[in-house]
Amino acid sequence: MEMNYSLIAERLKLRDDDIKRGFKRGIIGRIEYKGIPMITFRKKIKHVERGTTLFLNEDLDYVAGYPKIRRALVLNPTIKNYFIDKVVVEEKLDGYNVRIAKINDDVVAITRGGYICPFTTKKAIQILNTKFFEDHPNLMLCGEMIGLNNPYVPHYYEEVDRGWENLGFYIFDIRDRETNEPLSIKEKIKTCKKYNLPYVEPLGEFDKEDAHEYIKEIIDKLNAENREGVVLKDPDMAVNPIKYTTHKTQCGDLRVAFTFFYDLGVDFMFSRVVREGYQAYEFNEDDDTLKKRALDIGESILYPMVDTIKKIHNGERVTEDFEIVVDNEEDLKEFLEYSKKLHMQIIVKNMEKIKVDDEYKIKVKIGKIYSTTNDKVLSHLNGGLW
Amino acid sequence: MEMNYSLIAERLKLRDDDIKRGFKRGIIGRIEYKGIPMITFRKKIKHVERGTTLFLNEDLDYVAGYPKIRRALVLNPTIKNYFIDKVVVEEKLDGYNVRIAKINDDVVAITRGGYICPFTTKKAIQILNTKFFEDHPNLMLCGEMIGLNNPYVPHYYEEVDRGWENLGFYIFDIRDRETNEPLSIKEKIKTCKKYNLPYVEPLGEFDKEDAHEYIKEIIDKLNAENREGVVLKDPDMAVNPIKYTTHKTQCGDLRVAFTFFYDLGVDFMFSRVVREGYQAYEFNEDDDTLKKRALDIGESILYPMVDTIKKIHNGERVTEDFEIVVDNEEDLKEFLEYSKKLHMQIIVKNMEKIKVDDEYKIKVKIGKIYSTTNDKVLSHLNGGLW
Repeated sequence: MEMNYSLIAERLKLRDDDIKRGFKRGIIGRIEYKGIPMITFRKKIKHVERGTTLFLNEDLDYVAGYPKIRRALVLNPTIKNYFIDKVVVEEKLDGYNVRIAKINDDVVAITRGGYICPFTTKKAIQILNTKFFEDHPNLMLCGEMIGLNNPYVPHYYEEVDRGWENLGFYIFDIRDRETNEPLSIKEKIKTCKKYNLPYVEPLGEFDKEDAHEYIKEIIDKLNAENREGVVLKDPDMAVNPIKYTTHKTQCGDLRVAFTFFYDLGVDFMFSRVVREGYQAYEFNEDDDTLKKRALDIGESILYPMVDTIKKIHNGERVTEDFEIVVDNEEDLKEFLEYSKKLHMQIIVKNMEKIKVDDEYKIKVKIGKIYSTTNDKVLSHLNGGLW
Repeated sequence: MEMNYSLIAERLKLRDDDIKRGFKRGIIGRIEYKGIPMITFRKKIKHVERGTTLFLNEDLDYVAGYPKIRRALVLNPTIKNYFIDKVVVEEKLDGYNVRIAKINDDVVAITRGGYICPFTTKKAIQILNTKFFEDHPNLMLCGEMIGLNNPYVPHYYEEVDRGWENLGFYIFDIRDRETNEPLSIKEKIKTCKKYNLPYVEPLGEFDKEDAHEYIKEIIDKLNAENREGVVLKDPDMAVNPIKYTTHKTQCGDLRVAFTFFYDLGVDFMFSRVVREGYQAYEFNEDDDTLKKRALDIGESILYPMVDTIKKIHNGERVTEDFEIVVDNEEDLKEFLEYSKKLHMQIIVKNMEKIKVDDEYKIKVKIGKIYSTTNDKVLSHLNGGLW
């Protein structure tokens, strides 16, 4: 189908000019999926969220981007000021945000950036009961794909371990695919139960006045279990959810950032240590606890950097490695082509046939290359000046 | 005198267009000193260094900006690759870079940014034998103003302590005021001795092949004494000097940056921790030493941040405080007007008459305000989301 700025603008309730300028400035990108051309929003334009994907099919079907979740730096008084009366606490899982919807008779899994990921789509279809979409074509399932065996955020979760693969999907919101209008938490859970869909179990519901005390305890417990944090929600979803994360998460983020420090260091570092500053202040730590936190921060920054420098000195190239399981070589090829289109630099490091029940699957180790870190460290080790 | 782009361009060996565009884009700024209009380069334009200051007097006298000193991230093989045969090691003092020159019959002290600082000018004239400039009007004295009692970089140095004031100036280069052509290190020292001018004493001269071993020892010693680092020079100044700093310096920089973290954190942080990464790697530290370094880094980041948050929670406004000694209220007023013109936000926190020999001077405590840190922390403590 031909691209018609006016029709797209009308469909999204934008002005023609927004669309025209969006394309010109690279904010709106053009891609395709299974031969159907689509456009995706790389940044928010007016009310249209970043990650919104519109199919250039007859109806100009689209899936709204997942709204940005803002962060509390201190639990108290943020919760008191922000919520209406009650606050529901859900665990924030450390994976990647996926919206699942049915478009053109296909169930697709869309990443935060607005791309249909073939790996995630195939896994989602295997995990989920897609009957849901027959009854609710206008809704999308928003959730977190988690586990060690995905190509984006590898973090081990015991609850999704199947031996040969550590991967799972948990729904946190059900929303109207176009308006982003969410179901209340009760309706969401009822719907998930009806279709036997996996969802994030609430950890509790509290009065907003003393919620921070309970949530601090929850955070301490999640931190001890090396889990990410919480998302705080109004029971009716009348205000946007907000998030809060654990010390271990901040340190884990720093460790990844400083393994590839010239690529990720600058952007990741500041926000993570600032979160630590507010948490240390609010948790009112004694000298020993504060010192332990400082040591964790310092080690999360220094150790991966020194490891990376040593490896590069020894002639290695540092990569971020992921192990994924695919059904066949075709699926792998499809994912590699997809990542190439998105300008991810990925190499296949190892492939291994594994037997799962009566079938064979392929376990693939892929490595994401961070060129800037590799090149700059090598240059500095050879005497290059800063 | 009227501003004539062509004459300025000719004088600086630039093209008219460079000057025109420089003004238009704010790279060249217009200021004045004692009624004489001047222009100053806020960034390097072609061969004209940042901080170059040109007086709009009859001769269009100018003082070249001090060239950027690049940094070694590892001592070995950087020194071997960079130098010709020998390398002279000078201590890098932790103060602020000043160029002193005589223009329009006035001896003036120019900061790195190209401004004539009235405080520094007056102190320099008191410290230095200005007879030098009568014999060498074409030369400038490049040096470091150091000590606790200056308005820019307060760092205590025992060797410049006079009881009522901790302040001193040490020359590290003598250069042609226009071309930046430096004297050799021998000539520089001879000249300083002749005029009884204070200079940075070399710590040693080494063959470039094994210099890194000696310099590592020097760095360990300077670090133990809480001093900044070294500048490495060719004896004839045939190549530009390079610098290398101690662990304590990196941590000290982080502590300042994280006291005012929303103003300075992002810019300062990354470079300092990266320096630590390379140093830890090169110094080949055992587990305990590496852990101690990590703890130092973590504490330098976390502790000042928590202190600042606590102070602001308690209703304080955080400022960076400096104590300076001025001869009279007139001098203080002149400095305050100067800092206002440069958009530094400074308040006077305390004034105290002190007796020095037979005269009275004024000890002034000034506070530099970092508005962004104060405002944002307050907002987050009141529940503002990130």
